[in-house]
Amino acid sequence: MNQKEFSKPVSLRRVQLTDSFWKMEMELVRQEMIPYQWDALNDRVEGAEPSYCMRNFKIAANITKQRAELGEAYQEKKFSTEIFQPLPEDENLMEDRFYGFLFQDSDFYKWIEAVGYSLTQHPDKELERIADEAIEIVSAAQQPNGYLDTYYIINNMDHIFTNLRNNHELYCLGHLTEGAIAYYEATGKDRLLKVAERYADYVESLFGAEDGKLKGYPGHEIAEMALARLYETTNNEKYLKLSKYFIDERGKKPYYFDSESKEKIKDKDALRYQYYQAHLPVREQTEAVGHAVRAAYLYSGMADIARLTQDESLYKACETIWDDMVSKKLYITGGIGGTHIGEAFSFAYDLPNDTAYAETCASIGLVFFARRMLEIKPNRKYADVMEKALYNCVLSGMALDGKSFFYVNPLEVLPEACHKDERKFHVKPVRQKWFGCACCPPNLARIISSIASYAYTETEDTLFVHLYMGSRINKVVQNNDVSIDITSSFPWDGAVTVQVDAAKPTTMTIALRIPEWCNEYEINAPSGDVVEKDGYYYITREWNGTETITMNFPMKVKRIYGNPMLRENIGKVAITRGPIVYCIEEADNGNNLHLVTLPKEAQLSTHTDHRFGYEVTIIKGTGRKLKLTASSSNELYHGSEEEQFEDINLTWIPYYTWANRGEGEMMVWIRQ
Amino acid sequence: MNQKEFSKPVSLRRVQLTDSFWKMEMELVRQEMIPYQWDALNDRVEGAEPSYCMRNFKIAANITKQRAELGEAYQEKKFSTEIFQPLPEDENLMEDRFYGFLFQDSDFYKWIEAVGYSLTQHPDKELERIADEAIEIVSAAQQPNGYLDTYYIINNMDHIFTNLRNNHELYCLGHLTEGAIAYYEATGKDRLLKVAERYADYVESLFGAEDGKLKGYPGHEIAEMALARLYETTNNEKYLKLSKYFIDERGKKPYYFDSESKEKIKDKDALRYQYYQAHLPVREQTEAVGHAVRAAYLYSGMADIARLTQDESLYKACETIWDDMVSKKLYITGGIGGTHIGEAFSFAYDLPNDTAYAETCASIGLVFFARRMLEIKPNRKYADVMEKALYNCVLSGMALDGKSFFYVNPLEVLPEACHKDERKFHVKPVRQKWFGCACCPPNLARIISSIASYAYTETEDTLFVHLYMGSRINKVVQNNDVSIDITSSFPWDGAVTVQVDAAKPTTMTIALRIPEWCNEYEINAPSGDVVEKDGYYYITREWNGTETITMNFPMKVKRIYGNPMLRENIGKVAITRGPIVYCIEEADNGNNLHLVTLPKEAQLSTHTDHRFGYEVTIIKGTGRKLKLTASSSNELYHGSEEEQFEDINLTWIPYYTWANRGEGEMMVWIRQ
Repeated sequence: MNQKEFSKPVSLRRVQLTDSFWKMEMELVRQEMIPYQWDALNDRVEGAEPSYCMRNFKIAANITKQRAELGEAYQEKKFSTEIFQPLPEDENLMEDRFYGFLFQDSDFYKWIEAVGYSLTQHPDKELERIADEAIEIVSAAQQPNGYLDTYYIINNMDHIFTNLRNNHELYCLGHLTEGAIAYYEATGKDRLLKVAERYADYVESLFGAEDGKLKGYPGHEIAEMALARLYETTNNEKYLKLSKYFIDERGKKPYYFDSESKEKIKDKDALRYQYYQAHLPVREQTEAVGHAVRAAYLYSGMADIARLTQDESLYKACETIWDDMVSKKLYITGGIGGTHIGEAFSFAYDLPNDTAYAETCASIGLVFFARRMLEIKPNRKYADVMEKALYNCVLSGMALDGKSFFYVNPLEVLPEACHKDERKFHVKPVRQKWFGCACCPPNLARIISSIASYAYTETEDTLFVHLYMGSRINKVVQNNDVSIDITSSFPWDGAVTVQVDAAKPTTMTIALRIPEWCNEYEINAPSGDVVEKDGYYYITREWNGTETITMNFPMKVKRIYGNPMLRENIGKVAITRGPIVYCIEEADNGNNLHLVTLPKEAQLSTHTDHRFGYEVTIIKGTGRKLKLTASSSNELYHGSEEEQFEDINLTWIPYYTWANRGEGEMMVWIRQ
Repeated sequence: MNQKEFSKPVSLRRVQLTDSFWKMEMELVRQEMIPYQWDALNDRVEGAEPSYCMRNFKIAANITKQRAELGEAYQEKKFSTEIFQPLPEDENLMEDRFYGFLFQDSDFYKWIEAVGYSLTQHPDKELERIADEAIEIVSAAQQPNGYLDTYYIINNMDHIFTNLRNNHELYCLGHLTEGAIAYYEATGKDRLLKVAERYADYVESLFGAEDGKLKGYPGHEIAEMALARLYETTNNEKYLKLSKYFIDERGKKPYYFDSESKEKIKDKDALRYQYYQAHLPVREQTEAVGHAVRAAYLYSGMADIARLTQDESLYKACETIWDDMVSKKLYITGGIGGTHIGEAFSFAYDLPNDTAYAETCASIGLVFFARRMLEIKPNRKYADVMEKALYNCVLSGMALDGKSFFYVNPLEVLPEACHKDERKFHVKPVRQKWFGCACCPPNLARIISSIASYAYTETEDTLFVHLYMGSRINKVVQNNDVSIDITSSFPWDGAVTVQVDAAKPTTMTIALRIPEWCNEYEINAPSGDVVEKDGYYYITREWNGTETITMNFPMKVKRIYGNPMLRENIGKVAITRGPIVYCIEEADNGNNLHLVTLPKEAQLSTHTDHRFGYEVTIIKGTGRKLKLTASSSNELYHGSEEEQFEDINLTWIPYYTWANRGEGEMMVWIRQ
């Protein structure tokens, strides 16, 4: 780990996204998701499960007010603290109490985070007014001591921080902090940031190594990375210390989660907290395990703390876990979490296509982790995975109209199985509206609207380009203003130009990622010192006036094969082109896709297509399809070796565009 | 349906099994299982879950006695009626109350049934004495009105027959009846038969079409076929009427299960009782659905009633369901029930190999159903399936030493997945000892010890040979004694002789099944009228003295392919020979069996082998195995088309012998 190499994401206030592909996605977030989610937070979406989120904040604000006014005389109502608080059967009997999941507050925090990012790219006074008003409600719910979690404020303040393992108070702190920082960075307004700081201060007063403090850590990680960012935003060392404490304490024995549990510990197995990545101290962990979102968030926080404290052992643990994950537990789409049971990593090489979990949020978490590893040490292996996840599993989470969403991103779907086979009930053949447990849609909104902060990181005199997308970046180097204009037609075409405008002669480095999927590439740049290292092309020179680098990363159609240990993909092939993974769908190729084979000699060609209302590259070729002949279709088992195939025209579409034309079969891995 | 064709199983008192294969299995039942199970019923097996079965009967007998002695003054203790009654945490605090599953009584009933069959083949005074003593205990538990279910007698008599859907009172009646008849037929002792009759009389006084009677039917079927058999044993029409009532009433609307349920009916779906085959009146059912054991038992009862009442519509329903099952929902091993969720049939063609349920009991139920269909109308299609189930899925349920058992009979096993992947926790890589919910081991004991009653059915002047096994059958035709000696080396060799000894000239028909797996066969018989029909070779003549039929059904090694709609088997091949399905195991073929392919041109040869301590036929051949080359083994996905295979010697063993050499991979369907 070399501190000089550390880079930081470029502030969104200094990047304007101009990219046609990502701009379109961001506009969906701005025009569809943000208003839709605001309605959802306020229980105004017909046919969608109500969130109760803003309702809970208002009720909590009222309680906080009464408590302040009445002081000692205030009589707290006590309710049970079940994880889900359902409505009464008759909606008219709703009380002034908490409804929904215990982490419902985070719905707002994720929304305000997306709003913040969006405002950096598209100022919107009306949206800002709505957000400011909402922030006032949230602020009003905060207790005088800084505590803020409406679930306990409303239900029972005696129980705060008594069930870190399963309840989500520190998770809500994390999302509050992320949202507050994003909004502060976009608008300069610190009202919510101060709320986050007060809550974090209160948590720091309770948790830590000091005598008398609680020795706990989050059951659902995220506070770790949020507090690291809060430290970088405020320079208050307290937050770094708290985050580091959570990381360092995690998984130590005796287990904190045992000590707080009222349940008898049946399973003394050392792996009982694997789900929470709390089975071992983090530096002793070598495998990506447990709930995949929790895992990715933890690893992201570990990388942050490794960088901020220059902790080699922690960085080493991040590298080891990363390598385990990408070499044994990563779908070709950038999905992670092979099993729906526990929404978790399965064992090495267990990546089923049809019962995959591959949660949208987990893939987003993987992007968080990858970018943090890039901040520490630029190596294209992180950016390649980040790109793969973003263009495939992450975008698959959202319909092309931005109005419906997937939690689960399978690589093979037979709708009949989703309807009739309980083992696949978690796999949906069509995207759903807002979820009661709404993690994925707002997570999509926040990552898409902040996409540029994954594309670019920087040091004082270097700009790293990890992902190619059209952008204008402003940077001050040696007190000189430099603007960098990037144009790209990714993910459909590999031609990229980078135009550097330096008003005065300025020495700086531009580091350009050479994608792993590209075997041969061209870069034409003005003369300078060129170094190629770890998949980046570094060009260092004195820039003066307007100068241009042009690149080409040819996107060839590729046949990809799985490691032979991937039982599910044996004998199969997947098609990719550039960063895009392709799939075949029933809408183009008929049903019974399992009968399709792609002979080795089949020619594949690319075509520009508008079937989804904008330009995408699709792939065509001739495959074969096993015929359902009369003899074979009657008997379940037969001894006839004769198989009849017919030639069929196959059409591949980008994986992320699947399930936008009604219900039908889909398949990424095709038999050869 | 032609009443003249109806046949009945040959009484076990008139068949002596001499077959080396089945005799060995029966000896395991007699020498291992029956004593072991008796110990289990009495909680004397170390390391196995206690049954509490006989303990419950003793406690119930005591209560019944007290109730009789005290009359009005008797104060019943009331306990909850949860489905499972666990021990207190401290075993020393055990009370005089019911423990175990609510259907625990049936453990004894299945045991006594196996004992009955076994005594017909191997008289054993000591075993008979133990059985008689146990029967006294069971009899003593019966209430004066005939009611007999220790679960309610001990826990709470107010609740009897209030939860037919989930509780198992009528299931216990069914098993009591089957056990009582078997013991009566073997020994002539009617003590337990009278107990069964009294319980059935009581049930008949409560349930039926008459005004004021309950309109219910069993949640777990079996009483239907048991009552039909009770009718055939006693000629008491009451039992036929009750059985027919259960069949006719099932699935009518409004649903009885709704009316008795205290739960609010959330799911108004018409399929909500599919699990119980109670979603539709049985004559309107066209598909095999729901819990596979329940289903097979119901269909068996339907076939009984169709035959006994010559009910064409009911017979038609049986045929339709049979065809659906065998053409869309049957494993090549004769297993049924593709999904562990609900231990149930999955949808058409959904027959996963690695998450299969294919419960031993369900396959036994399939044999029950098949034999009943044969009784109505001999057609080899039923006998072929019966044979397939018996030699493969059913026998797989028991270790070769008779000491451990499988519930679940998968067609592909990766032990790591069984241990680490919760989706496969139901699949065990090694057989288990006695189960707390002990349906499969005693079901195995009863079917194996009565195997001859599946091999042979008869009419007055015809003997049907459905399965080939060495036996001596005595039959009286036209008041003449005829004995028929069959010798066979099935399942390893297809040569069979049937020697008929008729002391006086006697006209009779012998009907010999020509197995479907046999394309060419030879039958040499004395001259007579020969008819071939529905897969049976009928020879009718006057037999006189000793005459012999010799047959040969060559057992060729066959490559079997799945219907193309079987997604899980596409591109794969299974190996069979005669009635035996083969598999490859890690013990012979190394690990990573998914890397193995069997080229079309590979030669396969048979070998006589003693690896399991007795003669079995194994198969050898040369296959190929994908190499884990350095380039492919590091990366999870790669673009190299180069695949390196090595030739390997493959050894197939009979499927039913798998998992007898420790834990390892197993596979039936191999890639080509």
